[in-house]
Amino acid sequence: MSTIKATNIVRHEGHVSRDERESKLKQKAVLLWLTGLPSSGKSTIAYTVEHALAKRGHLAYVLDGDNIRFGLNGNLGFSAEDRTENIRRIGEVGKLFVDGGFLTLASFVSPYSADRDAVRELMGEGDFVEIFIDTPVEICEERDPKGLYKKARTGEISNFSGISDPYEVPEKPEMIIKTADWTAEEAAVLIIEMLEKSGKIQAQQN
Amino acid sequence: MSTIKATNIVRHEGHVSRDERESKLKQKAVLLWLTGLPSSGKSTIAYTVEHALAKRGHLAYVLDGDNIRFGLNGNLGFSAEDRTENIRRIGEVGKLFVDGGFLTLASFVSPYSADRDAVRELMGEGDFVEIFIDTPVEICEERDPKGLYKKARTGEISNFSGISDPYEVPEKPEMIIKTADWTAEEAAVLIIEMLEKSGKIQAQQN
Repeated sequence: MSTIKATNIVRHEGHVSRDERESKLKQKAVLLWLTGLPSSGKSTIAYTVEHALAKRGHLAYVLDGDNIRFGLNGNLGFSAEDRTENIRRIGEVGKLFVDGGFLTLASFVSPYSADRDAVRELMGEGDFVEIFIDTPVEICEERDPKGLYKKARTGEISNFSGISDPYEVPEKPEMIIKTADWTAEEAAVLIIEMLEKSGKIQAQQN
Repeated sequence: MSTIKATNIVRHEGHVSRDERESKLKQKAVLLWLTGLPSSGKSTIAYTVEHALAKRGHLAYVLDGDNIRFGLNGNLGFSAEDRTENIRRIGEVGKLFVDGGFLTLASFVSPYSADRDAVRELMGEGDFVEIFIDTPVEICEERDPKGLYKKARTGEISNFSGISDPYEVPEKPEMIIKTADWTAEEAAVLIIEMLEKSGKIQAQQN
């Protein structure tokens, strides 16, 4: 027979609740969904928000091509069907991260309204915030840090959102960030103010 | 032009690191992979560990059928191919949670060695701990809280691990929990001691 002492440990048949994690983390979890054309500035804004939140002691996480496309969704391509499954899986992972208590940012082109709406539908009330990174295609193409637009124009890349594949502009996003007017830092301020106003994080006193 | 003041916010082009999150959370992330027959006691042990960790101020999360089978992997069945994809996706999500800084528990039958080994391969050194919940099939079948063994015996459920589908016993798991000898509370003590000894969490003073 065992002689292990487990005086402080109680048997449980169910999960620790999201509420308990949020209380510990002193934040309310949410999925911020950044959508926009390639090179519109989504990821820079997401990272800038993530770092600003971390500096304030919050737990945040960015889901993006870096950690999704070569991992979970490495077996998907860019057909319409695969794009839908891509966004569906990201939505499900976002839901898990929100359940985990994270201020979660998803940074994906996510060009189809129906796919984004399906994620909104999946999430609980108030858990999904659609942020349209509204950068005109001409500016995106001028920036083109990875040379993708160039390759899309020559046909080296096909099914490229905004060039050879549709990008459906969000009809009723919770926020619109016009990067022609605002820097990434300014966009981050707007997003963090929104998180404060909606009670996801506490306003800073200063 | 904008008049937004972003004096404390700095532009970033990359993710906040796992190290930073682990420092904030005062823990080292890990994926504890609980494998064993249906009704072997995996989830009860996982929940008991999760609650005990939460009580000590840690952030933990359990991935299991509850939050995976009807969500991310709702489009998968129980064929060998789908089982492999099921475990692959769970491994990828586990990797994201570990990157997020969580003490992550995965509670899945995961009957095939090759699938479990693929998750081990995916994770970084020391990030994967395989825990075999070693309950004899007779005891699992006697417990049968969901009546699944009964349905497997009558053929109402096919491809049932341990009855009509193989369960490949782990050859070199980091831990073996014999639930015939130990209660869920005792198993949790053993797992938490292992987390302390491997430096994932600090030992409690008392």
